[in-house]
Amino acid sequence: MKQQREGLLLVVSGPAGVGKGTVDQALMSRNSKIKMSVSATTRAPRPGEIEGVHYFFKSEEEFKAMVDNGEFLEYMHVFGSNYYGTPRFFVEEQLAMGHDVILEIDVQGAMKVKQAFPNAVLIFITAPSMSEIKSRLIGRGTESMEQIERRFATAFEEVKMIPHYDYVIVNDVVDMAVHRMESILEAERCRVSRSKDLLESIQDTGR
Amino acid sequence: MKQQREGLLLVVSGPAGVGKGTVDQALMSRNSKIKMSVSATTRAPRPGEIEGVHYFFKSEEEFKAMVDNGEFLEYMHVFGSNYYGTPRFFVEEQLAMGHDVILEIDVQGAMKVKQAFPNAVLIFITAPSMSEIKSRLIGRGTESMEQIERRFATAFEEVKMIPHYDYVIVNDVVDMAVHRMESILEAERCRVSRSKDLLESIQDTGR
Repeated sequence: MKQQREGLLLVVSGPAGVGKGTVDQALMSRNSKIKMSVSATTRAPRPGEIEGVHYFFKSEEEFKAMVDNGEFLEYMHVFGSNYYGTPRFFVEEQLAMGHDVILEIDVQGAMKVKQAFPNAVLIFITAPSMSEIKSRLIGRGTESMEQIERRFATAFEEVKMIPHYDYVIVNDVVDMAVHRMESILEAERCRVSRSKDLLESIQDTGR
Repeated sequence: MKQQREGLLLVVSGPAGVGKGTVDQALMSRNSKIKMSVSATTRAPRPGEIEGVHYFFKSEEEFKAMVDNGEFLEYMHVFGSNYYGTPRFFVEEQLAMGHDVILEIDVQGAMKVKQAFPNAVLIFITAPSMSEIKSRLIGRGTESMEQIERRFATAFEEVKMIPHYDYVIVNDVVDMAVHRMESILEAERCRVSRSKDLLESIQDTGR
């Protein structure tokens, strides 16, 4: 018997370099019913990017209309740059189909999603320590020392937001981090606060 | 890296006949760090019962002194009958050793434990429906129809208390119920609210 029918929205944040993407991908490869949220953006598609898979590509006009209609769980606009947002319809459609949805997003976005969607489960993925975060950033070898310093300063601010999350996962060994994510999903499905239908069906078939 | 060092107190309730004991035993057999709480009682030991394993056997005087000293997480006394209680020291000792402790107890006891020990995780184990509970009670074949009716009436009251629990587990297939318990343990270890030490150690090793 399935304990809970509707899917769960997992909001995943964490500093650059802690391996959020690796954990999310591994989780999805092991669970076909877990889907990644697809963002909307006003930026132009890059070669190979597919509408509805990598992004929903919108004109600025379309995007603003969606904002006005309350169609985003959260969105952001860097001044003079592009808009990015999480369309509510995609998430809700997937959840209604019984899929769990992963939304990888920064701490500010996560706080907005929690407000718009109080049932969301907020997970913060981190390395065991700030010094480990720093060496992972350096280890990626993709950025200048200045960029690394900036990312590290951001990481330091992000980590301060952990108390606003429901769960914190230390990504030391990827398989263990994935197993923790799976456990959180399974446990959340057993939460009494999510089991209204189940509670009714238990009592209903009584005398 | 272990996410959380101190053990968890799992309070497990559920109607007679839903297989709480089977689930708990299977869970312990698969996880050597999970221990069953040992109750104290004023009743006489039965043949084969071992002090400190099955019960802590106490005189009424000793038991009352323990009550006065606040040594119980909860206790009960059926008028004209014996005292039963959950000694706090045993639970706390096991938790401090990093063991998780299972406390199988009725709904009234569970509510008292939650008050005395707010960190406890309350799990309600049930069958999928009241009619299933009834047929399991009958299927046990150990009780008269009158006893079964009484147990069923009790079950009906117990199920109403589920909203006071953290988690509800439907025990349809024992292995799945055990897996849900294990997931809850793993997830609770990742709870931000239980991870004070971890949060400090992440930030501490910073700049």
